[in-house]
Amino acid sequence: MKSVRDIGEDALIQRLVELVPRSGDPAAGPGDDCAVIDQDPASPTLLLLKTDALAAHIHFLPDTPAQAVGWKAAARVVSDFAAMGGQPTHFLITLALPPETPVAWVEDLYRGIGNCLEKHGGLLAGGETSSVPPGSAAVISIASTGCVRREHLVLRSTAHVGDILLVTGRLGGSIQGKHLDFTPRLREARWLVSKYKPTAMMDLSDGLAKDLPRLAAASGSGFLIDPSALPVNPGCTPAQALGDGEDYELLLAIAPARIDELLAAWPVEFPDLPLTRIGSLVETHAGQSLTGGWEHFSFP
Amino acid sequence: MKSVRDIGEDALIQRLVELVPRSGDPAAGPGDDCAVIDQDPASPTLLLLKTDALAAHIHFLPDTPAQAVGWKAAARVVSDFAAMGGQPTHFLITLALPPETPVAWVEDLYRGIGNCLEKHGGLLAGGETSSVPPGSAAVISIASTGCVRREHLVLRSTAHVGDILLVTGRLGGSIQGKHLDFTPRLREARWLVSKYKPTAMMDLSDGLAKDLPRLAAASGSGFLIDPSALPVNPGCTPAQALGDGEDYELLLAIAPARIDELLAAWPVEFPDLPLTRIGSLVETHAGQSLTGGWEHFSFP
Repeated sequence: MKSVRDIGEDALIQRLVELVPRSGDPAAGPGDDCAVIDQDPASPTLLLLKTDALAAHIHFLPDTPAQAVGWKAAARVVSDFAAMGGQPTHFLITLALPPETPVAWVEDLYRGIGNCLEKHGGLLAGGETSSVPPGSAAVISIASTGCVRREHLVLRSTAHVGDILLVTGRLGGSIQGKHLDFTPRLREARWLVSKYKPTAMMDLSDGLAKDLPRLAAASGSGFLIDPSALPVNPGCTPAQALGDGEDYELLLAIAPARIDELLAAWPVEFPDLPLTRIGSLVETHAGQSLTGGWEHFSFP
Repeated sequence: MKSVRDIGEDALIQRLVELVPRSGDPAAGPGDDCAVIDQDPASPTLLLLKTDALAAHIHFLPDTPAQAVGWKAAARVVSDFAAMGGQPTHFLITLALPPETPVAWVEDLYRGIGNCLEKHGGLLAGGETSSVPPGSAAVISIASTGCVRREHLVLRSTAHVGDILLVTGRLGGSIQGKHLDFTPRLREARWLVSKYKPTAMMDLSDGLAKDLPRLAAASGSGFLIDPSALPVNPGCTPAQALGDGEDYELLLAIAPARIDELLAAWPVEFPDLPLTRIGSLVETHAGQSLTGGWEHFSFP
């Protein structure tokens, strides 16, 4: 009998979404950083929906400061709204906790979530607490609504062959600490969608080697990048930049006609954060493939 | 060091919600079956938000058919939208699974969720799958948006002293099977809010002994009920009807002036489902107290 470890996350999701009623509009269903709901064609804004989860021993360790875990849980969701060109509005926080969990730990977790919401926006709308058996892993699941101006929405699936690929920041080595203390690129994404609207965008959570093929496939294209040209964090190799994951930087595609202007304007606006051209989208048959990246159900 | 088992769910939530930014509008925050978001004062509908979770060994057993678990996970959320007078729209499904989970089990889980959405409405908008360490309990977290016509919205907090308390269906003994195979009272709630709008309503998930005090306290009142008059499931005692939980029936308050008319009209519309008068709301100091009901972090 096949287990979820045998088939991996992407194949699992593909099987599952066939089993439940979905919207006829692909943007309103699974497959992008957020689902996009057009509630009212007369409204200038669209509703965004996102859910995410952290589990003990997988995304954080028992001795990870709970406040950092809370920050990470909320900031991952904020990062997904940024990737769509939007911003978070209302959060739902679900905790599944073993009964021995210290109250002080849960309070610190919430303080970390609160810090992120204070900094990046969004309000607590509700939550749920459930127990898991003693000794089971704690799970923190955060769902959130967000909003995006209709003309600012960016999907993964709308890039074209020939578009230039860029990433913000530096990649790799996130496990050294950045995965607990990253800044979701909300401000940068807002600037991008209003000034140099990307043809596609996503946030890098599972590693470029996993996420870039997703963006390219969604846009019906292949990709060519030069791994040695990747912006890497100090002490990291290109392989780590490709495969470590949890970078929470933006991966974006830009029409070639806008690239020079964008690369000139960026450092004026964001002097402390690099924006690096890493390659381009090509016809599928002409593209390369990458190995590495985070596989959710794999265990050493 | 105090654990979540020591202080219980209600006290935990009260502490936590103070730590995160909330809306100034109490209906837009935690405390009711759903959060209510007024996105646009010109719109005839309000946005509802709900999140809920099931954990293995707590809400279902390893040998519970996965399709029944999926039905339950989705129907609990539908029941909360019913309790507000609304209906579900878009679901987000988050799974935290140990890597040894059979793919067939997850597919059956999704089939059960799909059955519920086909019957009661709502579309899959997205999801997340995460691993938990081998041997840890699986957690299924479902968040959903819903909608309600502005004039149909019913809160827990708006009943008055003197209002009559009623429950749909029969209570107690849900563990014999009904907890896996209940019908959320969506149709009944829709009829109620359009014909005999309750002054307050909620769904019974933790048992009348836990849930009725919540409704009464939210409405600033006490309550008096006659436990021997409760509608019980066959073979159940009044204590079970009070304490077993997972009834997923509606508890509602009605202005005394409407009660005779409602009790005459109900059986014509819903001949197979009892609606039973169980007591009334009174001044807080004149109320009774109840013991029993489901405590989320308590373990024998």
